[in-house]
Amino acid sequence: MSAYATCVERFIQSDIRNPLYDKPDMISFSAGRPDAAVFPLSDISTAFHVLFSKGELVQALQYGTTEGLGPLREKLAAVVMKEAGVVTDTGNIMITTGSQQGINFSAQLFVNPGDTVICETPTYLGALNTFSVAGAQCIGIPVESDGMNIEALQQTLEKHRDAKFIYTIPDFQNPTGSYMSLKKRKQIAELAAVYGIPVIEDAPYSEIRFTEEKLPPIKSFDTSGMVIYLSTFSKTLCPGLRIGWICADTSILQKYVLLKGTSDSQSSTIDQFLAYYYLTNSDWKARVASVRQVYLKRRNTMIEAIKKYLPDTISYVVPEGGFFVWLKLPILMDDKELLNKTTAFWNVSFVPGSGFFPEKNKNNYIRLSYSNTPVDAIPEGIKRLGQALQ
Amino acid sequence: MSAYATCVERFIQSDIRNPLYDKPDMISFSAGRPDAAVFPLSDISTAFHVLFSKGELVQALQYGTTEGLGPLREKLAAVVMKEAGVVTDTGNIMITTGSQQGINFSAQLFVNPGDTVICETPTYLGALNTFSVAGAQCIGIPVESDGMNIEALQQTLEKHRDAKFIYTIPDFQNPTGSYMSLKKRKQIAELAAVYGIPVIEDAPYSEIRFTEEKLPPIKSFDTSGMVIYLSTFSKTLCPGLRIGWICADTSILQKYVLLKGTSDSQSSTIDQFLAYYYLTNSDWKARVASVRQVYLKRRNTMIEAIKKYLPDTISYVVPEGGFFVWLKLPILMDDKELLNKTTAFWNVSFVPGSGFFPEKNKNNYIRLSYSNTPVDAIPEGIKRLGQALQ
Repeated sequence: MSAYATCVERFIQSDIRNPLYDKPDMISFSAGRPDAAVFPLSDISTAFHVLFSKGELVQALQYGTTEGLGPLREKLAAVVMKEAGVVTDTGNIMITTGSQQGINFSAQLFVNPGDTVICETPTYLGALNTFSVAGAQCIGIPVESDGMNIEALQQTLEKHRDAKFIYTIPDFQNPTGSYMSLKKRKQIAELAAVYGIPVIEDAPYSEIRFTEEKLPPIKSFDTSGMVIYLSTFSKTLCPGLRIGWICADTSILQKYVLLKGTSDSQSSTIDQFLAYYYLTNSDWKARVASVRQVYLKRRNTMIEAIKKYLPDTISYVVPEGGFFVWLKLPILMDDKELLNKTTAFWNVSFVPGSGFFPEKNKNNYIRLSYSNTPVDAIPEGIKRLGQALQ
Repeated sequence: MSAYATCVERFIQSDIRNPLYDKPDMISFSAGRPDAAVFPLSDISTAFHVLFSKGELVQALQYGTTEGLGPLREKLAAVVMKEAGVVTDTGNIMITTGSQQGINFSAQLFVNPGDTVICETPTYLGALNTFSVAGAQCIGIPVESDGMNIEALQQTLEKHRDAKFIYTIPDFQNPTGSYMSLKKRKQIAELAAVYGIPVIEDAPYSEIRFTEEKLPPIKSFDTSGMVIYLSTFSKTLCPGLRIGWICADTSILQKYVLLKGTSDSQSSTIDQFLAYYYLTNSDWKARVASVRQVYLKRRNTMIEAIKKYLPDTISYVVPEGGFFVWLKLPILMDDKELLNKTTAFWNVSFVPGSGFFPEKNKNNYIRLSYSNTPVDAIPEGIKRLGQALQ
């Protein structure tokens, strides 16, 4: 057979959805799936009934526009983006199939093979994989408890003037849980303007916040039109309706719309209608407030168990939001060896940390997700992990 | 700002969804949208109620697997692919967001910029655009009333041994309506094996058949595992549930799954559940039989009007299926000038034919769609076109 394109050689197999770890009795801290208990079943059901009773199901089953359903984009601007802290408009929003599609389109629109992309280290491995498939060279900027190291970022921008964009997850970063400070958010918006470099601000966990203090997104400080904001309903509403969105300057957004057209024409019309009627008939602010409580309880349960069962040689920062606890193992311990051991003998799984580093040079970290494991099983899972670590 | 990737320069603006032509009173023969009257509203509503009453809505709102919902893939293999004439298995099917995503993935998986792709001329412009964005050089093989010219195909394969794939629409081709003969189907499957070149068989219109004779797909003659079959529910069920699929050899399909993962993780879980319960509770064979009647009536209405109102200088072949009539204008007439004239003065629109030719050297063809125009308006629209042509 004729050869595949070069991109095929660049795929990285991820450990997150490894079916080997789906054994019965396995306690999994692997995937960042939301807790199904938060899904608004009756509200989605109501949305469907509104569609049907209003005679709009027929439109919901027809083709729509590539950029997405106008009324949904309007609601996203007026309700969801406003709550997130961004003043924007329907014309600046395009619907995507989850935030992953926004990441993928960003790679396709900006990256030729060999181009440089700047990201955090560690960072979301789905983004690293996507950038790698596009042929990007990823340079990682160390991420601290208050976000990217700005000095290192500036030095990298100086050295790599031709870098295509900066990819960052300011809110409850995946995997570290780090929450970027206000100062750094402003600095990154400034650097984008000074260096003329787009910033891809990926914000899937922004509303899963346990702190009182709410920090505005980098996009809210965007004076140059350089910040491209990605978000999704996957963590706040449900991921099965694949509704994400891109909020960007119209000249940039137009390019994303072209790519969306050739990629899949448009996202599901019915999903968009359901999301629209959900937003129309519900209180978004109350929604995210209640979702926060669910994950706060889960985080607390995990942190208590870590304190109780894990040895002092393991260090971590208590996350102020999001889905993950990032554990640092003693330096001589290997993340993948540990996973082999815990899945084979202790029936507990997690994601090895090495995949989150663009440099792939750190193997003494692991990511635990508390978002989807049955709450009662969290202490037992951490106990087993502690036993494996002894 | 840093430059976009090279692919951005290769986007072609399509005339199909031009909002300028959405004037009131415009009779549009442009977009290949299905007739909303065929949408199975009550069956989709029933599918939703099954989901809700069985307590499965919660799974339908959660993440699913990248390759798609197992039970849906099983039904597609056992019911839909079987009816289409392909013996296949769940493991050979991946769900996509419409057939367009299958086309796009094919380009991404096989094409490096500068590579050669073989397609029909004329062919679906959404595919041409996607191939162009991937940097492919498209070589067009003339399409006759019984499909691709096989002699020209063979010569091209000899000359371009490094071509990456053959893209073909054997059933009621977009835009010509041509229906590939049994002989040519077998020949293409053979050529795929002999030359070791994948064949992308795009089959969105296969079930919209007005003839008694049903020809099996190229995939059914695939002995070498080289034929990649793409299909969709967009024309037979509804496009708003964005459910398409790829049927291919497992070793090839695995590559598509990797690409799907980095592209958008997965298609809408709820759409997949709705499609699954639709297929479980309905008679697919009866469904496609009734859909055929709707479009047969529409085709007949358009052909009668063409006979009545268009001058003899316009030639065409009566399509035996699908959504389109392909008109050949007198040689000195320009498709785009005609469109400017008909939209400005006659309130009737269509798609200029030049966009369907990879060589862009023919401008005396136009595509009329009869699929979505109100049936009663079809004769009036053709009458206006006839007046514009005088």
